Amino acid sequence: MTEQKSFSGRYFEDFQANQVIYHAGALTATEGMATLYRVLSGIRFPTQCAEPFARALGYRDCPLDDVLVFKIAFGQTVADISMRAIATLGYGGCVFGEPVYSGDTIQSETEIISLEPGPTKDVGLVRVHTTGRNQHGAMVVSYYRWVTVRRRMPATVTAVLSADSLPPPVSAEQIQGLDGLSMRNYDTRVSGSQHLWEDYEVGERIDHVVGCTIEESEAMTAARLYQNVAPPHYDAHFMSSTPLERRIAFVGHIVGLTRALSYNGLGNVFRMASIDRARHLQHTFPGATIYAWTEVVEKLAIPGSTDIGALRLRSTATKNQPCGDFPPAPAAGQPGDVLLELDYIGLIPRRTTKA
Amino acid sequence: MTEQKSFSGRYFEDFQANQVIYHAGALTATEGMATLYRVLSGIRFPTQCAEPFARALGYRDCPLDDVLVFKIAFGQTVADISMRAIATLGYGGCVFGEPVYSGDTIQSETEIISLEPGPTKDVGLVRVHTTGRNQHGAMVVSYYRWVTVRRRMPATVTAVLSADSLPPPVSAEQIQGLDGLSMRNYDTRVSGSQHLWEDYEVGERIDHVVGCTIEESEAMTAARLYQNVAPPHYDAHFMSSTPLERRIAFVGHIVGLTRALSYNGLGNVFRMASIDRARHLQHTFPGATIYAWTEVVEKLAIPGSTDIGALRLRSTATKNQPCGDFPPAPAAGQPGDVLLELDYIGLIPRRTTKA
Amino acid sequence: MTEQKSFSGRYFEDFQANQVIYHAGALTATEGMATLYRVLSGIRFPTQCAEPFARALGYRDCPLDDVLVFKIAFGQTVADISMRAIATLGYGGCVFGEPVYSGDTIQSETEIISLEPGPTKDVGLVRVHTTGRNQHGAMVVSYYRWVTVRRRMPATVTAVLSADSLPPPVSAEQIQGLDGLSMRNYDTRVSGSQHLWEDYEVGERIDHVVGCTIEESEAMTAARLYQNVAPPHYDAHFMSSTPLERRIAFVGHIVGLTRALSYNGLGNVFRMASIDRARHLQHTFPGATIYAWTEVVEKLAIPGSTDIGALRLRSTATKNQPCGDFPPAPAAGQPGDVLLELDYIGLIPRRTTKA
Repeated sequence: MTEQKSFSGRYFEDFQANQVIYHAGALTATEGMATLYRVLSGIRFPTQCAEPFARALGYRDCPLDDVLVFKIAFGQTVADISMRAIATLGYGGCVFGEPVYSGDTIQSETEIISLEPGPTKDVGLVRVHTTGRNQHGAMVVSYYRWVTVRRRMPATVTAVLSADSLPPPVSAEQIQGLDGLSMRNYDTRVSGSQHLWEDYEVGERIDHVVGCTIEESEAMTAARLYQNVAPPHYDAHFMSSTPLERRIAFVGHIVGLTRALSYNGLGNVFRMASIDRARHLQHTFPGATIYAWTEVVEKLAIPGSTDIGALRLRSTATKNQPCGDFPPAPAAGQPGDVLLELDYIGLIPRRTTKA
Repeated sequence: MTEQKSFSGRYFEDFQANQVIYHAGALTATEGMATLYRVLSGIRFPTQCAEPFARALGYRDCPLDDVLVFKIAFGQTVADISMRAIATLGYGGCVFGEPVYSGDTIQSETEIISLEPGPTKDVGLVRVHTTGRNQHGAMVVSYYRWVTVRRRMPATVTAVLSADSLPPPVSAEQIQGLDGLSMRNYDTRVSGSQHLWEDYEVGERIDHVVGCTIEESEAMTAARLYQNVAPPHYDAHFMSSTPLERRIAFVGHIVGLTRALSYNGLGNVFRMASIDRARHLQHTFPGATIYAWTEVVEKLAIPGSTDIGALRLRSTATKNQPCGDFPPAPAAGQPGDVLLELDYIGLIPRRTTKA
Repeated sequence: MTEQKSFSGRYFEDFQANQVIYHAGALTATEGMATLYRVLSGIRFPTQCAEPFARALGYRDCPLDDVLVFKIAFGQTVADISMRAIATLGYGGCVFGEPVYSGDTIQSETEIISLEPGPTKDVGLVRVHTTGRNQHGAMVVSYYRWVTVRRRMPATVTAVLSADSLPPPVSAEQIQGLDGLSMRNYDTRVSGSQHLWEDYEVGERIDHVVGCTIEESEAMTAARLYQNVAPPHYDAHFMSSTPLERRIAFVGHIVGLTRALSYNGLGNVFRMASIDRARHLQHTFPGATIYAWTEVVEKLAIPGSTDIGALRLRSTATKNQPCGDFPPAPAAGQPGDVLLELDYIGLIPRRTTKA
């Protein structure tokens, strides 16, 4: 008898601690991909959209949007890690490395960090660390993720899951990807915002004002752009027989929209240095309109850099709920309109360098 | 207290006559953008789709479609000019300059020409002139637009608006962008039409036959392609509370579809030289099927050119109404199926040069 | 009176046997096109997605997906051949030639092979042979198609149509496009499948597991990507007055999805060498979820090649019907969920070369 050729994903029992999985699906970035991401997310940051602007900062071309890079390195893991997942409980500790340009090829691998009992006997908890690299082997993105995965056989024990085991927030010392950059020629006329690092205050809250509705077709196209193959994003027939009844948008798409909406108020945050943590509070169904607001959590000086500062930010994205009054995430288990809390570090020019 | 970081657009009182606004959002054209525009609009003109054909005419690559260039230079102005607009009353006097190729970066600025009382006390009329340039500073598109913008405070006077203050139609002498072009190698087999400048007659009417339905997702993608950030195109939640109840398609998308549909009957109109005037008669909602027909208004010889002629054309686009009987625009205030009257100059080879 | 400028397609009487029609609509392939095809079809084969992988096999870049090349050369013929068609009864005998890369320009021409009575007096049967070439004149795809086309005047005779006149399946000797290729550096970690030519057995059946739902917007975008201009794919207003009531997805899109889904189980089938025959059993309407399974029909050695083998495959695509139990096509005239039977030859590395 011939061996089974197709693959339906790993059960919990199929993982081994410390195992390293090399993911199929290496993907060469193209200008088409950058453009398609632009029209799906609505990003308008000039570093990612205007080549002369990017070159003036020291990039050799427009780098791909950071969230796009993250999502590709996430999508590449889905077939191996989460095809039989119940849920991604969280991800974070994400650091961005070398910029990715059109023509670069992204390939990912994942180390299984730990295997633990899950909250029910039917699932186990898998903690992983994924690294995306370019064709030269340089790290472009590195992140942690933990996910509950179906077991073949029920377990004898369960565990209460805690978010405490999240990696700590990324520190200023861990920030990468600044080599060769200079803010000397940063042109705020092109970014459309006059507000630099010095102008933001800890505790300041920024409404990003404009909302954006998600469509079925677009959510599916976005998921495919990142090579995410999980059926809940594609297969309406399958989903109609589940309690959710319909397809759900890939959580990564909500992260991308949130970053894109933040342009209005954070127009000079030219790149993300980290995603400390993304907390998805509920599923997002196509048809929802996404709004967002951001709080400045911390201002970070970057060791060795006089012209680039960092802001630790928490963006909150809602559905069908404008954010003029800064709606907070409800307590765990309470209903609400908040879809996402996104903690990240944004890079922004320092004013002192413009003197 | 910190300064407000996000921006919700200018009120009428925020504009000053003769003010020049440098718009954020410089955008580098990519092949991805050209391809995406092709699949959203359906354009099939070989100058924009087939590189060997474009090179044979003297272009150094396929130029971006003219309507796409116009829409980018329009989209870039929205955040500064029309976020608080009630309506764009019209635009025209549009001249195309240097061709735009993949790799070129488009950046726009707008001069405020005049500020006048509006038709109600709540709005004022803003007339502007926008110029889009490439990275070398060369003009790629230049156009006029007038728009009613909300006032902070009600005005004491109102005015009856008239279309008479439109710029005059663009003349043959104003046509640009012909340097280095030759029709010697124009291959009508590739364009699919045998009809050149001599074959069209003033008063001739051409049905473009095939219709095209607009989808929500596509209209939104198109608006993002042009960086148009106006909420009526994206925000279904917001629109559900307005009298329109739902999102509307960006008027520029209707212009693009009309030009694309015109290929069937005007297959050798290889570029647009002007948009004299676009008159949008009603909102277009996704779900509508667009049809179009065109009348030849004037035949223009171009000073100094023996192998390129110009046709002044008026295209009429309808919704859910095939155009075999050439439906005219109804009188002002009358209901009807006409969405758009588009007056423009098209460039087309002259037969005499084929001898 | 001026000549009719627009074109509504040929009637049966407008064709002549042995006539060769040079199609308008030459199209330059772009990276944007490849990316857009990737996100519309979901293809994940690394030859088409990862440039270093493609180069390691001897390609000079990622070649365009074979189905995309076929669909472009199909779409280019629609205006000339099938605008007045009732139905494409079948196509096949399709051979792929030179790989197509971004920057290449595809142009097609069609020879009318025969004109015969149709199954009713209102239509005639047109058999054609289409060849797509690149800008150097090299064949990139060649295929046969037969289609029933409306007559201007009813015929006096009809004929019972038979599928027997299909071209024979493509033979191993007819396989093209292998020049300069070597499997020496084929990396199965990147393809994600360990299964090579030796591992497949005649009669083996493979469920591709994951399904994919088609959206209106996406189906329309896909049809435009291939320059297919047939109104049933675009014009919802027109279709609402037909017995079908709504738009149908372009059959070529179903072929593309089927090939893309086959990645799960046939991950090393790096290119298609032929499409022997595609049999479409019913219309596909947006909203359907497509599943697929494949049977290995024959294992072919390729003359002169020691490291590339060929598999003759039959893929069956269904709507809203997972394929774990390998649903067969029903007998002619019987209802069922099968949309497509696709017979083709796939190229796959031979294990012996890895020694």
